[in-house]
Amino acid sequence: MIVLFSDFGVADPYVGQVKARLSVEAPGQLMVDLLHQTPDFNAHAGAHLLAALAAGFPPGSVFLAVVDPGVGTERHGAVVTAGGHWYVGPDNGLLSVVAGRDTQARIWKIEWQPELLSSTFHGRDLFAVIAAEIARGAFPEHKLSQAEKLQVEFDIGDLERVIYIDHYGNAFTGIRATAISPLSRVSVRGMELAHGETFGRLARGQGFWFSNSAGLLELAVNRGSAAADFGLQVRRCSRRVKARLNNQNGAIIIHIGTCWAGHQQIVQGLEAGIAIVISQ
Amino acid sequence: MIVLFSDFGVADPYVGQVKARLSVEAPGQLMVDLLHQTPDFNAHAGAHLLAALAAGFPPGSVFLAVVDPGVGTERHGAVVTAGGHWYVGPDNGLLSVVAGRDTQARIWKIEWQPELLSSTFHGRDLFAVIAAEIARGAFPEHKLSQAEKLQVEFDIGDLERVIYIDHYGNAFTGIRATAISPLSRVSVRGMELAHGETFGRLARGQGFWFSNSAGLLELAVNRGSAAADFGLQVRRCSRRVKARLNNQNGAIIIHIGTCWAGHQQIVQGLEAGIAIVISQ
Amino acid sequence: MIVLFSDFGVADPYVGQVKARLSVEAPGQLMVDLLHQTPDFNAHAGAHLLAALAAGFPPGSVFLAVVDPGVGTERHGAVVTAGGHWYVGPDNGLLSVVAGRDTQARIWKIEWQPELLSSTFHGRDLFAVIAAEIARGAFPEHKLSQAEKLQVEFDIGDLERVIYIDHYGNAFTGIRATAISPLSRVSVRGMELAHGETFGRLARGQGFWFSNSAGLLELAVNRGSAAADFGLQVRRCSRRVKARLNNQNGAIIIHIGTCWAGHQQIVQGLEAGIAIVISQ
Repeated sequence: MIVLFSDFGVADPYVGQVKARLSVEAPGQLMVDLLHQTPDFNAHAGAHLLAALAAGFPPGSVFLAVVDPGVGTERHGAVVTAGGHWYVGPDNGLLSVVAGRDTQARIWKIEWQPELLSSTFHGRDLFAVIAAEIARGAFPEHKLSQAEKLQVEFDIGDLERVIYIDHYGNAFTGIRATAISPLSRVSVRGMELAHGETFGRLARGQGFWFSNSAGLLELAVNRGSAAADFGLQVRRCSRRVKARLNNQNGAIIIHIGTCWAGHQQIVQGLEAGIAIVISQ
Repeated sequence: MIVLFSDFGVADPYVGQVKARLSVEAPGQLMVDLLHQTPDFNAHAGAHLLAALAAGFPPGSVFLAVVDPGVGTERHGAVVTAGGHWYVGPDNGLLSVVAGRDTQARIWKIEWQPELLSSTFHGRDLFAVIAAEIARGAFPEHKLSQAEKLQVEFDIGDLERVIYIDHYGNAFTGIRATAISPLSRVSVRGMELAHGETFGRLARGQGFWFSNSAGLLELAVNRGSAAADFGLQVRRCSRRVKARLNNQNGAIIIHIGTCWAGHQQIVQGLEAGIAIVISQ
Repeated sequence: MIVLFSDFGVADPYVGQVKARLSVEAPGQLMVDLLHQTPDFNAHAGAHLLAALAAGFPPGSVFLAVVDPGVGTERHGAVVTAGGHWYVGPDNGLLSVVAGRDTQARIWKIEWQPELLSSTFHGRDLFAVIAAEIARGAFPEHKLSQAEKLQVEFDIGDLERVIYIDHYGNAFTGIRATAISPLSRVSVRGMELAHGETFGRLARGQGFWFSNSAGLLELAVNRGSAAADFGLQVRRCSRRVKARLNNQNGAIIIHIGTCWAGHQQIVQGLEAGIAIVISQ
């Protein structure tokens, strides 16, 4: 099974072009679209989404994972095997969370370049070919070189941000629910949310938080939109944000306005009630 | 053939997660996405859409139908066979129109629960498994119990509402076109629409009504949007609305503002010209 | 491989209905969705998109291409073989660019009509059946008649317009990049754009033009939206626009406001800086 994960969008021709290439290189392989609306250009959110979503896929699945704003520049391509899965994509951090969370992970750099390589579409011209070869059991060792580690590595801990908002308006955070007690208190913009098991147990329009089907802490509103009600959106931050504040009694704080610049801003955000705060 | 019908959205990861499960449980089965933008949470509109759209599918097709705002609560899961098709989904009315329109329909309650069951994603963890077993010819009798009827049943007659708006802005009603004479007069917000066979026979920008390719009465504007021009939207109403008024000469009236509270409001709506009126 | 190309939208049930029909008529054939958001009703933009995108597909691919605002009227259906591919769809110009660019192209008119033919959905009821027969190697000669040429033919040269805008906001023009030197100067609304090889080589927010992965001249903004920044949209023009002005030193001018009515308007648009101008 080849699993497609990208920010190519569901409406554009890019996914179809990739599938045509995959089907030529690995005839008969099942191709499953997992997500093509990973937040645009956001390899960081993508890395955490990929790690959470991939867990439910069968062993041996080959993930073609492309969120690649640096396509055509010096960034490398990589192959990773981790958690019983294969991953092929750009070495820009996107594969680093799945790789970093498995101590047995193995990593290769892609050395090969096809004769015809669009400078803007390595997903089709390069990564799809490698993924197809792995999927059909012809591991392309001669096109790869083993590597100690990826060039770009994100922190493999939880990501204290909103990393995805679905079409209902439910907001995924990058915080694994196993890290949070059901007794934790979660508040958004100063308003405390109930903990719920599922939507139908809450009143219509009531906000709540829960452990979602991908194992992440999610904020939702029954029959409504958490994103709209609480003004949530996925943000890109140019550098790793230190959101865990020790002087806040160990609370996890997710700022939902601009990206945090530091401790002072967090405290201000907290006082202004413009953050998600999780007190364990 | 497994046919997917849901409100999971086309942009989110849910469909891919379901397909991965289906492909593990029923390898090699064709999976066809029929509709993933059934109006959110709206099992009533969904039930009528499903009944209209399913008619065109080959005998033996297995529909995995999930519009399930009550997931994880006490609502049951059901299997239905009707009209030569199989249906698997929540027992919240979604399957009740296809079931009710076939006097030979058979119904089962799903008794089984998988070991790992997300409280918010039975589509993946429970219904997909049952649908896959049926599709590969291994009817899971031991996971089911026969039932006389579904727990939630909607009226199997026509639904006098706008039940779907496509991306062009064409509006499907829940009224089967066979029930309407081409000589009927249809007006929206007091404006009478032409009856048309097809788009290209009308002037650009002209509104018309026709019997659509799913057998439903549809309102459209040639090269334009009926939804935008007439202010149409799909509404959820918390209870069955009695829209057929005998004292209006047998006209069918579809209110398009708020949900009807009763006769008085319908008459007011009619006077205000904010309804769709169909005079036979 | 059957490749689907349409303006059916990705959210609506139409694509699933077509696939169900295809899978009945040509069991086991791979179906690839190339594009379902061709600009609505716009066979002209669609014809140029199809020609550019089809080039990357394997020989023998069968394209089911449906952008068909005239469905159910007197327009014919056509089968074309050109460039090693098959095409099935309405004879409204959509297939005329691929046909016209291959001097060896062969053309058939579809004479057959199925017993059950919706007047608004020939994509499902007629074109899908023909495409399936071709894909499974049963060329339906008895349903066709050979034709010298298509009824509707667009100019097979470049189309000096924005023909597609993707979800990032990148704008495809109908100008083949092979026709343009990298030294050409491209300006939009009076602002000159850099030429770039790929996104990551430009500063964030910087606009540039490049030869895209489908071989077309594309306007983009690194990590931003060219459509939003420059006010670009795909327009339909009711007649062939003469956009190449000899007295502008051979520059290619793409108007991005209303459709051109003639020379005078082009000059005014140019003076007002509301056009894309390409000086070779």
